Amino acid sequence: MIIVQKFGGTSLSDEYSRQHVLRHIRREKAEGHRLVVVVSAMGRRGEPYATDTLLDWIAQNGNSLPDREKDLLLSCGELISAATLCSLLNREGIPAVALTGGQAGIRTDARFGFARIVDVNSARILEYLEEDKVVVVAGFQGATEDGEVTTLGRGGSDTSATALGAALPAGIVDIYTDVDGILTADPRMVSEARPLAMVSYEEICNMAYNGAKVIHPRAVEIAMRAGVPVRVRSTFSEGLGTLVTHADSVRRQGGWTDRTVTGLAHVKGVTQLAVETDNGPSDVQLRVFRAMALSGISVDFINVTPAGVLYTVTDQDAPQAVRLLEEMRFSARVRSGCAKVSVIGGGMNGEPGVMARIVEALTAANIPILQSADSNTTIWVLVAEDDMVPALQALHAAFGLHLAPTR
Amino acid sequence: MIIVQKFGGTSLSDEYSRQHVLRHIRREKAEGHRLVVVVSAMGRRGEPYATDTLLDWIAQNGNSLPDREKDLLLSCGELISAATLCSLLNREGIPAVALTGGQAGIRTDARFGFARIVDVNSARILEYLEEDKVVVVAGFQGATEDGEVTTLGRGGSDTSATALGAALPAGIVDIYTDVDGILTADPRMVSEARPLAMVSYEEICNMAYNGAKVIHPRAVEIAMRAGVPVRVRSTFSEGLGTLVTHADSVRRQGGWTDRTVTGLAHVKGVTQLAVETDNGPSDVQLRVFRAMALSGISVDFINVTPAGVLYTVTDQDAPQAVRLLEEMRFSARVRSGCAKVSVIGGGMNGEPGVMARIVEALTAANIPILQSADSNTTIWVLVAEDDMVPALQALHAAFGLHLAPTR
Repeated sequence: MIIVQKFGGTSLSDEYSRQHVLRHIRREKAEGHRLVVVVSAMGRRGEPYATDTLLDWIAQNGNSLPDREKDLLLSCGELISAATLCSLLNREGIPAVALTGGQAGIRTDARFGFARIVDVNSARILEYLEEDKVVVVAGFQGATEDGEVTTLGRGGSDTSATALGAALPAGIVDIYTDVDGILTADPRMVSEARPLAMVSYEEICNMAYNGAKVIHPRAVEIAMRAGVPVRVRSTFSEGLGTLVTHADSVRRQGGWTDRTVTGLAHVKGVTQLAVETDNGPSDVQLRVFRAMALSGISVDFINVTPAGVLYTVTDQDAPQAVRLLEEMRFSARVRSGCAKVSVIGGGMNGEPGVMARIVEALTAANIPILQSADSNTTIWVLVAEDDMVPALQALHAAFGLHLAPTR
Repeated sequence: MIIVQKFGGTSLSDEYSRQHVLRHIRREKAEGHRLVVVVSAMGRRGEPYATDTLLDWIAQNGNSLPDREKDLLLSCGELISAATLCSLLNREGIPAVALTGGQAGIRTDARFGFARIVDVNSARILEYLEEDKVVVVAGFQGATEDGEVTTLGRGGSDTSATALGAALPAGIVDIYTDVDGILTADPRMVSEARPLAMVSYEEICNMAYNGAKVIHPRAVEIAMRAGVPVRVRSTFSEGLGTLVTHADSVRRQGGWTDRTVTGLAHVKGVTQLAVETDNGPSDVQLRVFRAMALSGISVDFINVTPAGVLYTVTDQDAPQAVRLLEEMRFSARVRSGCAKVSVIGGGMNGEPGVMARIVEALTAANIPILQSADSNTTIWVLVAEDDMVPALQALHAAFGLHLAPTR
């Protein structure tokens, strides 16, 4: 089986992490698998070849790099990581080659800084795999038809990994992180949080969109379309982490038989704006959202009623949003310092009473719900920021997430 | 006119040098020239993106990088320099692009670490020049037909510059260094040494081959074949440095009307070996040179006579050379700590009495000549290392090199 492994930016920074990386590679090799390993640039600012260090260097030198050249520069970070791992593997007697994103066949459009993958030609990787080599690929980058070097933007290396996994195709894509998989909640907020055995592509996307620090939705989408299973697992253990796959596979394998809710996510720093329409013109709603859009302010949690408009913006955007409302002479109530708590579960679709259980849990904990919204797989509640941690803990307990099956 | 400028590894390391680099670029732009600027990696070990720093990093991480990947890694050094200069230029309001060697059209064979340029396609550079952009090219590197990144080995960035100069073609290739051009001798040995106004391609090659730290012969050869003039000049002054061109141009422009000898070069650390053939087998010479060649020992200054074989090796190779001779039971006189002094001049061809003047000058200075050799443009003498500096000074004076015309 072909396995794509992706290691993050910190995995090559110190000897301890490097040894763990080598262990995962040796183990899969020993089991007869063929390996493509995607690496990110070194992570921490100040490390010689970290992305931020490269950007700091340019900031000190003119600070005027066009996007095209910035991509060319940043691509070196991953390239150096790839060469580093290649050297470590060869020392261990594991034949390896290092490829740039372009050499690995990742073709992108020319939107420098946030290029989209348009095609992956895996022929060259397959040739090297035939030669029994570990193929180390510089993540986060690709090349245009014309040979321009591009970077993929946020979640870039995850995207490189799943795109290669989809093209080869790989039997599985393993995303190695510093946690044991995808957790039911952020463990800094909920100490009972635990890794899930299995989640669906849709669930993990929902978690990511709602603030959980997991694999990037772009990367998940590519895996989902190709039907390549993804595992999110720890660099530092032998645990199998969380399997991400199609909802029907999760269902078939019993992933949801005993759960309605899969996990919780949260976003802090939210401001709620309530605009009253009673005495205003009839097109208040239209004018509000048009003004926000023209100023590039993202709005969320929108609730339109005859009595008014309720919506949220980030605390950063709030002053400008308020100014815009004042310019239009709309009266608005402003509530800053809120948090959005998301209750996510592919199994809640059609399941009655989920909202009731949320309200019950939060009421019992004396937490006022400032606003709510729901889709078929997620329910969102807005609470005061001070209530966020108690809300997460109450909901975690109420849905029995501390009992979620792990592997 | 298209001008190719090449700046070395130290030119981007500090603010002072950077300002001088920008000055040269601004000046040529102001005169209406179109510019291609080739840059090396930062020079000094310890600087974040210097070649040696990258190699040190790998030495600490497995130290087992295959040649192909080593080239991929090292190419980042020049790439970062190119991005840096591009940023500096854009800040100055001078539109610039940065290209890898491959993007600049430099096609090479696949001999990683010492690739040869097989073709230069300048179409892309010409397009950017049409857009009135300064084209910054990462030196020292190219790419194969298959998109493999290669490095050009020693003198690589000079070679990039003259190869681009030949392909475009450029009106001139300016090699910026930290001296005012090609000097009549090493100024650390001969304080009267001064920059030459003009030398021929052949002369500069001879100087380089004989130990002078000037532009690499590979680079000169490419310029010579294409007939592109090269200037070797200082980053830190406005001096025009030394023009390197065809011998007949030098002659036509009066470069040799008043000179027989153009300059002096020297190599220290030479061991002279004298093998006597009197009592040995008849194939002594053959066996000596075959043994040296099989052991990878470079021999120089070869003098074969019926009485024996006289030749030189480096001091480093000497112990092994002596051991090989002993194994063959040849008796050899060994004289280590010698120096080779080269007297170079395109104008000495057919000029009588040059050797006589050399002998006269050295005899007057009480310097024994241990051995000599000559070609049509160079005369070599071997002296004791202690005699090297006095020999250089005596010859410099004898040929009136302190009067050489500069620009």
